[in-house]
Amino acid sequence: MNKLAKSLANYVPLTPVTFIKRASVVYSNRTSIIYGRTSFTWRQTYERCCRLSYSLRSLNLYRNDVVSVLAPNIPALYEMHFAVPMAGAVLNAINTRLDAKNIAAILRHSEAKVFFVDYEYVPQASVALRLLMVGSKGQHRMPLVVEIDDINKPKGVSLGKLEYEQLINDGNPEYSGEKLEDEWDAIALNYTSGTTSEPKGVVYSHRGAFLSTMSLIQGWEMGTEAVFLWSLPMFHCNGWTFTWGVAARGGTNVCIRNTTAEEIYKSISTHNVTHMCCAPVVFNILLEAKAHERRRIISNVNILTGGAPPAAALLEKMEDLGFHITHAYGLTEATGPALVCEWQSKWNQLPRDQQMRLKARQGVSILTLADVDVKNKKTMESVPHDGKTMGEIVLRGSSIMKGYLKDEKETAKAFQKGWFLTGDVGVIHPDGYIEIKDRSKDVIVSGGENISSVELEAILLKHPVILEAAVVAMPHPRWGESPCAFVVLRKTGSTTETEILAYCMKYMSKFMVPKKVEFVEVLPKTETGKVLKKELREVAKTLKIYNKPRKTIDLEMNV
Amino acid sequence: MNKLAKSLANYVPLTPVTFIKRASVVYSNRTSIIYGRTSFTWRQTYERCCRLSYSLRSLNLYRNDVVSVLAPNIPALYEMHFAVPMAGAVLNAINTRLDAKNIAAILRHSEAKVFFVDYEYVPQASVALRLLMVGSKGQHRMPLVVEIDDINKPKGVSLGKLEYEQLINDGNPEYSGEKLEDEWDAIALNYTSGTTSEPKGVVYSHRGAFLSTMSLIQGWEMGTEAVFLWSLPMFHCNGWTFTWGVAARGGTNVCIRNTTAEEIYKSISTHNVTHMCCAPVVFNILLEAKAHERRRIISNVNILTGGAPPAAALLEKMEDLGFHITHAYGLTEATGPALVCEWQSKWNQLPRDQQMRLKARQGVSILTLADVDVKNKKTMESVPHDGKTMGEIVLRGSSIMKGYLKDEKETAKAFQKGWFLTGDVGVIHPDGYIEIKDRSKDVIVSGGENISSVELEAILLKHPVILEAAVVAMPHPRWGESPCAFVVLRKTGSTTETEILAYCMKYMSKFMVPKKVEFVEVLPKTETGKVLKKELREVAKTLKIYNKPRKTIDLEMNV
Repeated sequence: MNKLAKSLANYVPLTPVTFIKRASVVYSNRTSIIYGRTSFTWRQTYERCCRLSYSLRSLNLYRNDVVSVLAPNIPALYEMHFAVPMAGAVLNAINTRLDAKNIAAILRHSEAKVFFVDYEYVPQASVALRLLMVGSKGQHRMPLVVEIDDINKPKGVSLGKLEYEQLINDGNPEYSGEKLEDEWDAIALNYTSGTTSEPKGVVYSHRGAFLSTMSLIQGWEMGTEAVFLWSLPMFHCNGWTFTWGVAARGGTNVCIRNTTAEEIYKSISTHNVTHMCCAPVVFNILLEAKAHERRRIISNVNILTGGAPPAAALLEKMEDLGFHITHAYGLTEATGPALVCEWQSKWNQLPRDQQMRLKARQGVSILTLADVDVKNKKTMESVPHDGKTMGEIVLRGSSIMKGYLKDEKETAKAFQKGWFLTGDVGVIHPDGYIEIKDRSKDVIVSGGENISSVELEAILLKHPVILEAAVVAMPHPRWGESPCAFVVLRKTGSTTETEILAYCMKYMSKFMVPKKVEFVEVLPKTETGKVLKKELREVAKTLKIYNKPRKTIDLEMNV
Repeated sequence: MNKLAKSLANYVPLTPVTFIKRASVVYSNRTSIIYGRTSFTWRQTYERCCRLSYSLRSLNLYRNDVVSVLAPNIPALYEMHFAVPMAGAVLNAINTRLDAKNIAAILRHSEAKVFFVDYEYVPQASVALRLLMVGSKGQHRMPLVVEIDDINKPKGVSLGKLEYEQLINDGNPEYSGEKLEDEWDAIALNYTSGTTSEPKGVVYSHRGAFLSTMSLIQGWEMGTEAVFLWSLPMFHCNGWTFTWGVAARGGTNVCIRNTTAEEIYKSISTHNVTHMCCAPVVFNILLEAKAHERRRIISNVNILTGGAPPAAALLEKMEDLGFHITHAYGLTEATGPALVCEWQSKWNQLPRDQQMRLKARQGVSILTLADVDVKNKKTMESVPHDGKTMGEIVLRGSSIMKGYLKDEKETAKAFQKGWFLTGDVGVIHPDGYIEIKDRSKDVIVSGGENISSVELEAILLKHPVILEAAVVAMPHPRWGESPCAFVVLRKTGSTTETEILAYCMKYMSKFMVPKKVEFVEVLPKTETGKVLKKELREVAKTLKIYNKPRKTIDLEMNV
């Protein structure tokens, strides 16, 4: 058995680049990309990738070199998902919502050799490049800048001399890319948005990207000929790997520049969209769309959602509109979704609200993960499957990142005892499904008891006049930490701190009742809709514990 | 990028064993196996595998040791697909249709350490063991024999002392298997049935088995909760990897001992079967079933067929019965199916017979193959995508076998210039779909021209009184080789050699017309329905070229 050696025929490094080579043959005349009046077939898209890849090599780009790009969901960004790794380089898609300072920090940290900039982002990019130049004091080699002009209506290049379509034109369509020698080689670099700490550069391997793509297509049951709407930014974990996945299934990419309700509804009805991904925050955009922006959803549109836990009620409203939602949980370090809330046919018999509660859970591991567990972080023992005992969600498998770029300390912190620690706290239900209770850092430790802020928020949200709620820890002289609730009221409602605390006394264990309720107009959030609890914790430090006006509440609250 | 090292958290060897560990958690209470009145849940099946694996280790089984098994599609054989690799050993499922001499040869060649025998196969196994003992002259260490009694109705052990359920009972349910260090390690050993040469021992790696399983679930779009009927023997490429695949999807295995029409129809209607695999030869069994054996197919039963090219007419008849058929092409060396005839929605508009002709093609590569091509074997240049130019089908990728056990010569012959040579001759159509024209050894080279025997057979089958046809090469003094046709006539029909040759003149290029037509009662076949052309070629050598009675035909035939 041992004498049978690996050969070129039976051991080929795994890489998602194979998906587009295959698509160019198998789905050659099928539409690969639609973007306004531009559309390509898979043969054309592959040819454009070959050309771009060739041009990148001509720019003296080598293995492990970083190519940064600042662009919305346009064909160029899609093509770069294949062309950059074909050139042996590493794709770094930058979050377009970042300010110039952050962009400069990423360009500096990643040592980007080439920087592609969409014409609309020239202003931020220009400032970022200036900051980079000044900050480096001549020490930093500036990246070569390539502007991506509007493919539908070119406006002329204003940043530097190179333009994207020119690189495509100058490329060699016969060039099929560098030979990948090792599937452990880096394919992409994605900076975390970091709700709890500084941005970190997460590196994916070709192997990890390939395997994640395979299992997400499968976990979501995305069939062949899918029409995929790019409502999720490609810079989020490479579009949760569906950049590569749509090529694998020979689907059609519908690219849109702006994620507005009108644009989404229009694309769905014009192109018969079958699949789209988005954070729950997009649900509100769709639900609050004005009448003239809406279209009736007549086709079967499957939505994969994640990025923040969706409320069961929100899922229900979206399904009422005609969307079919699958809930997933993941993080940048896991190459996007790591758990999918796989539907069980027996749930079809349950009442609607129960179905939605089941669906709001984070779910079960994708197929290419070797193992997922919830563990007591101190003892590293598995929690019982009781739906109650909380522990840290830990992952293991080849779709986990290679590590954080140039950050041995954080990499070592993330990988402990053979597991990747997600920093999320959850439970395992008796049916094996995992539910997130909190971010590890958001758990409130009050008098030795762990309090899940997510649990308190869920109870607060059932209050008739509360629209949004976020609970964080505030310092407490006796208990160490105590819960502090920030609430946004409905426009039509009004209430008092005393009334809300009385409500909490009714529905929560006494030790869980917040020691302070603060009314706010809006909650600070990331662009994916995650509440920035770090900021709220800072505010909470400045607040005073509720000054009990009535004795009854007082007595009960200091259990 | 290069400093980020592999760790236990982010680099886990790929193996299908992870599928059952996951199933035991995620699908714990779902039915894993149904076999008569026996049924298990995934938690139980996993526990049984852990126990068996532990017992195997207790029998002093080590890494790379071979465990042979002679059994039909029973739960034990299914469980061994996980328990044997969990013990670090290599599973060798032997074709139950082989005679004692062949079984002995496999036991000898594989150096099996343990030999599991289903109670029904004790007679063959006993003879095989005696042959092994005699043949080895005391040189060969005899395998430890374990009998598998009937789990539904135990009959008592008659072969040796060990029994399967006893090993299960004696095992440790907490044992979770040996840690796999290298995904290149062997997981299975399957002997080819060999229509053209001696049986060879094909070795699969854990990596290859994992990847094949992933892409076949995908290529066939087998969703979660599939109910899979074991109509395909598990000893054929480990059930085309669906032994592992059903666990991956948390489906239910319906095991049957005999592949009779009655058993298949009954299982489909009793258990709402959604998926089954079989060679086209099973279609005839289902189509020719007697009225009392049949049931109406009301559920959506998906069939994956392969092993021999199915006639378009046969596909149509099966779909008329209510089956939905997907056609695949593969071979033992490719871990089962390597091409799948992926359906394209635009074909829905075509006339039925054209749909069936498209479906009868072998199709496009599965996702985990790195590359598939059709090449001129001499120059290794790719053939044009014209649907006409023939070449050898070649494959490359990590789902290709490790090689042939203890056969460097054949391994080297199979892997050439970075490709695995299938020995099958085909064409690529303009849409990228591959169609097989012949086995490489079955191509007839007449006066320098390649003649596809499959093409001639297809024409002969259109003749109103011909039921079956097989064309092979016969020696020809002038052309080197010439086609010789063996035909089976319909019971109601009669014709003459002269008439058939006149028919051929009408529908074939002149150089293709057979030089001899031989009428036979039946064609020699393998159990999967492949015609044994090697045998026919031997017969053809003894036949005389058609002695032209009329001048017109004579003239035309010697073009």
